[in-house]
Amino acid sequence: MNEKAVMEHVENHFMASEFVRDVVIGMADGLTVPFALAAGLSGTLSSSSLVVIAGLAEIAAGSIAMGLGGYLAARTERDHYLAELERERREIIELPHREREEVAEILSSWGMEDKDVASAVESISKDYDRWVDFMMKFELGLEEPDPKRARNSSLTIGLSYIIGGLIPLLPYMFLQNIKTGLFVSVIVTLLALFIFGYAKGKFMGTKPFKSAWQTMLVGGLAAGVAYMVAKWIS
Amino acid sequence: MNEKAVMEHVENHFMASEFVRDVVIGMADGLTVPFALAAGLSGTLSSSSLVVIAGLAEIAAGSIAMGLGGYLAARTERDHYLAELERERREIIELPHREREEVAEILSSWGMEDKDVASAVESISKDYDRWVDFMMKFELGLEEPDPKRARNSSLTIGLSYIIGGLIPLLPYMFLQNIKTGLFVSVIVTLLALFIFGYAKGKFMGTKPFKSAWQTMLVGGLAAGVAYMVAKWIS
Repeated sequence: MNEKAVMEHVENHFMASEFVRDVVIGMADGLTVPFALAAGLSGTLSSSSLVVIAGLAEIAAGSIAMGLGGYLAARTERDHYLAELERERREIIELPHREREEVAEILSSWGMEDKDVASAVESISKDYDRWVDFMMKFELGLEEPDPKRARNSSLTIGLSYIIGGLIPLLPYMFLQNIKTGLFVSVIVTLLALFIFGYAKGKFMGTKPFKSAWQTMLVGGLAAGVAYMVAKWIS
Repeated sequence: MNEKAVMEHVENHFMASEFVRDVVIGMADGLTVPFALAAGLSGTLSSSSLVVIAGLAEIAAGSIAMGLGGYLAARTERDHYLAELERERREIIELPHREREEVAEILSSWGMEDKDVASAVESISKDYDRWVDFMMKFELGLEEPDPKRARNSSLTIGLSYIIGGLIPLLPYMFLQNIKTGLFVSVIVTLLALFIFGYAKGKFMGTKPFKSAWQTMLVGGLAAGVAYMVAKWIS
């Protein structure tokens, strides 16, 4: 593997920053659901302003559900982590023999030979904190959640939902005729979904064009079904 | 630790089945967003039927965004996993020396002593598949996603969103007077959110009453803000 291949390797193993991931989570739903709701309602309502009211109410509801809901879920996850940590600490003190066996089982399952396992168990269980860490990670599969990150993450997701959701509503705000509003909103939002999907693919390290088409498809389908549902009941 | 304590340990390490987790994901949003949208609109609309139309259009849009969107995200994740697997396989063949060093670094970071590391690296890198497995898990932190699970999961999330979303809309369907509809919808949905939050806490192994209050709070707040937004613009 030459220099270029190594560089490519680094680049492709690249994981999107958590900020970008949060923007993607919030904006994907923000571009899709208010868009689909507004498109759906424009088939039955006669006034653009009602579409805008419903759209903004949806954005308020959706951004709180995603933002605050996500924040509380992260806090709960942290409580869960701390409770498990407490339990694991106690167990290592109260049942060191059993916990040592668990370390051995984990190491064996990775293909380590018996003679190495015994010696590795010895070195891991020599340091109390490291031992606790090891059990948390590999017995329970838990990583310590960052409390500040939970707050930032929810804010980013909520704001991205709001920004994404405003895009499909803007045409209805500026165009009095609801049919024209719908037409411009569909064009603008499908384009935005395509660009967003492309960027998402780039950042996430997957195929950008595939991601662009798929994102547009989900948004378009959601809007189409919402339109049919609204037409059908009214 | 006596028998009872051991049992308790097993019970508390219990992780909710993936099915339950999917129901929780779909229903949490389904109970919250259509509820908040309907409540928000009932402050400005005069007819219950418009609230129902908007609510059902939202349910259609939201369930597709969550269901289909989630399905495609899972497929992308799988593609990503397979691409990384392919790369890791190639690297182990082309650059075995460097990959062996990476195994050693990972093992050292867990507190294993140098003499154990060398021997453990030897046994792990003896079996090609196990070596690849080890790198995927501990260098890249990736587990193989299950394709069938992605489909089932999206279906469960989408359907749970629909079921959750219908609960706040039913009162508007049966009560002509929009104020009565709103009143009954708020009572019924807050109660449903409380019960749902309690069950969620039970299943997820966190405090049920805390979860119940929090779930109700998010739903109530979303509805309140949506109501104010709708009132303010109209």
